[in-house]
Amino acid sequence: MSGTQLAAATAAELIATQPGRLIGVSLGPGDPDLITRRAFARLTSSARWAYPVTGPGARSHALEIACRAGLAVPADALALHFPMTRDRVALTAAWQQAAAHCLTALAGGRDLAFLVEGDASTYSTFGHLAATLRDLAPGLAIEVIPGVTSFAAAAARLAEPLVSDAGVLAVIPAAYGIEVIDRLLDQCDTLVLLKVNPLLDQVLALLERRGLSGHARYLERLGTAAERVLLGLDGLHGSRVPYLSLLLVKNPGRHATPPAPMASSPLPDPPTGSPR
Amino acid sequence: MSGTQLAAATAAELIATQPGRLIGVSLGPGDPDLITRRAFARLTSSARWAYPVTGPGARSHALEIACRAGLAVPADALALHFPMTRDRVALTAAWQQAAAHCLTALAGGRDLAFLVEGDASTYSTFGHLAATLRDLAPGLAIEVIPGVTSFAAAAARLAEPLVSDAGVLAVIPAAYGIEVIDRLLDQCDTLVLLKVNPLLDQVLALLERRGLSGHARYLERLGTAAERVLLGLDGLHGSRVPYLSLLLVKNPGRHATPPAPMASSPLPDPPTGSPR
Repeated sequence: MSGTQLAAATAAELIATQPGRLIGVSLGPGDPDLITRRAFARLTSSARWAYPVTGPGARSHALEIACRAGLAVPADALALHFPMTRDRVALTAAWQQAAAHCLTALAGGRDLAFLVEGDASTYSTFGHLAATLRDLAPGLAIEVIPGVTSFAAAAARLAEPLVSDAGVLAVIPAAYGIEVIDRLLDQCDTLVLLKVNPLLDQVLALLERRGLSGHARYLERLGTAAERVLLGLDGLHGSRVPYLSLLLVKNPGRHATPPAPMASSPLPDPPTGSPR
Repeated sequence: MSGTQLAAATAAELIATQPGRLIGVSLGPGDPDLITRRAFARLTSSARWAYPVTGPGARSHALEIACRAGLAVPADALALHFPMTRDRVALTAAWQQAAAHCLTALAGGRDLAFLVEGDASTYSTFGHLAATLRDLAPGLAIEVIPGVTSFAAAAARLAEPLVSDAGVLAVIPAAYGIEVIDRLLDQCDTLVLLKVNPLLDQVLALLERRGLSGHARYLERLGTAAERVLLGLDGLHGSRVPYLSLLLVKNPGRHATPPAPMASSPLPDPPTGSPR
């Protein structure tokens, strides 16, 4: 039976039962202490675990974070395969197959906690899995527990603001293309470039050309024993960096003259106002 | 003695002692279960608490999150005043005064945990406080504990992705100006507008004009008993909304033709690759 056939059959069966909930459990960027109290509670509840891997026997960053938190991987934890590709056909097939496995598990009535590295809503496979499941079984209950993003953790690690006041923050996977990055730099005060490896040298050249190299920070494998933080970018040229790497770029010269709506009157004092 | 004089005197004194650390403790957007395990540990450590208020007797959202987590406010918790204004002179004076109070507390050797709603690096008063303290006492140890942002929590609450695949995410306080918002919409797939109150009607008109009203979600006071979530924007016209409100705007029509770097070859399989 194909993934799609299996899913359809299981979805039909699911309607007759009281299925479990799918829970997207965000674990944060790597440091197990950055797991939220709710995520930790779900991992230690009766929910079955599911976690993403790129293929049979591959490591799961999400699972490793849970292990570093001192949790033992349950014997029935479900490895779901999501190939590392941009081939839409292969991806769709993988989402269908994973959704079918989830439906089978959920039909038993037990909640299924899908472990997510970082935040489940931010560039995550979980979004595709949840959308596929929702198509197959529209009434399925889905809970998403948000988590700390890698870029919030990166700024905290540097003890530098990510973005302040009325600044514009933009986030983009670097593979999107160098022209897009160049255009975005005109529009934002802080640019976060995720997954920089495919375009690293081009990005470094662009930052050099725009005079921003000194305002960029490079971080990889945050919150793990292999963490690396570079305040300058010199050591990066020509190197190959891991998947879990990012650049934080500040664009301090953007406001030579402050924009009109900002410089003038103070904001009104809202009734429930409170500084953050 | 002015705030600046006090700070200078205390900074000099601090050098002769073993000062405590300043800790920026992010508490997430409102739901106490979204506090990370590290933040909770710091709040239940021997560290003294400090928290921001807009003025004498005002509420502190950050403190309220800690209270909802079941923690009692210690008797010696320090309220620090940050006026709700964009007047740079008034703000600088407030940061100086708050920094002076922090230095006095830190000089005793005890850590000082500054409670932050949301994430301490993202549009937070904490960044200004830390920068002021660093100027006054360059050797001061500062730890920042990252937290869940309001926009990650908003997407989770909706069980919708915030941003997917190679999409561009942009975040901006709405008061920045309607032209900036209009320009940014051309560049991003998801736009988060924070603190929408001052420009709400103009933003609603812009979204209407661009045909994006149906792709916008409004959320206020997330994770509290007063939480409100609107999937359409009809009820908002002409209304006054609270400070802790945001709009999530999806821009689905942006890629009529996919950009060149995306459609073609799959990304290389990095050695430590793992789906998120």
